[in-house]
Amino acid sequence: MGEYKRILLAVDLADESNIVGERAIQLARLFDAELHVVHVVEPLSLVYGGDIPMDLSSVQDQIQEQAKSSLDEFCEGAGVLEAHRYLIFGRPETEIHRIATAADIDAIIVGSHGRHGLALLLGSTANGVLHGASCDVLAVRVGPGAHRRAD
Amino acid sequence: MGEYKRILLAVDLADESNIVGERAIQLARLFDAELHVVHVVEPLSLVYGGDIPMDLSSVQDQIQEQAKSSLDEFCEGAGVLEAHRYLIFGRPETEIHRIATAADIDAIIVGSHGRHGLALLLGSTANGVLHGASCDVLAVRVGPGAHRRAD
Repeated sequence: MGEYKRILLAVDLADESNIVGERAIQLARLFDAELHVVHVVEPLSLVYGGDIPMDLSSVQDQIQEQAKSSLDEFCEGAGVLEAHRYLIFGRPETEIHRIATAADIDAIIVGSHGRHGLALLLGSTANGVLHGASCDVLAVRVGPGAHRRAD
Repeated sequence: MGEYKRILLAVDLADESNIVGERAIQLARLFDAELHVVHVVEPLSLVYGGDIPMDLSSVQDQIQEQAKSSLDEFCEGAGVLEAHRYLIFGRPETEIHRIATAADIDAIIVGSHGRHGLALLLGSTANGVLHGASCDVLAVRVGPGAHRRAD
């Protein structure tokens, strides 16, 4: 069985992504793999259904700037090359799969909130990434109910 | 961040589970973790909706015997202790979550066929395991469309 040579971490840059990011860094070290990091910003028009007043375009710009700054901060700390950082607009699942294919990724790491029922139907990124991925997917459990060791 | 101390491999004992099993063995070695292995046999009554003639009970027995033999064969090869092998009747997701909690598991490894659309709604074990798991879940991609390195 081959090792993981290229790992893609999909972050949402919320506080909880620390846990996911640390796991990705740990696995990349264990496998001596390249770590790639993607953050997908959903256009407000996708999130809110297209009824966005024109003056919200500056909000979108601010979201993107903040996202770039957070992505770079994480990647500097983790030693991720600039060429392996991806800040993208679009639908998370679609874009994560696209990057995974383009960068010849062996394993995608994504946070999972363990949603089920209606929340799942309404969309979970981990769920969306799992389906249709042509590589392995590690869903790192975050949020309430997550089992964590103290050590 | 803690290491994975106990990894639970959920196998379906089909040919494809070799890939999943090898990944589980590899990760258990990298993390120096205990490897636990569960195989859940779905009762025919669950699979076929309860309309099982009485004389099929011997078929169920044969399925169970075959499953035990395959599970033991895999576990002997992988050096999995008898106390860490679980052959269980029931619904896969429910039983996998139950074992994960009872054995204080940090990560579940399961094969994923990358189903989507109707096939997903009809049930994918990887999908079911992901939702509601209180620990990390690694879905190892198997079957057509899986990205595999030759090395």
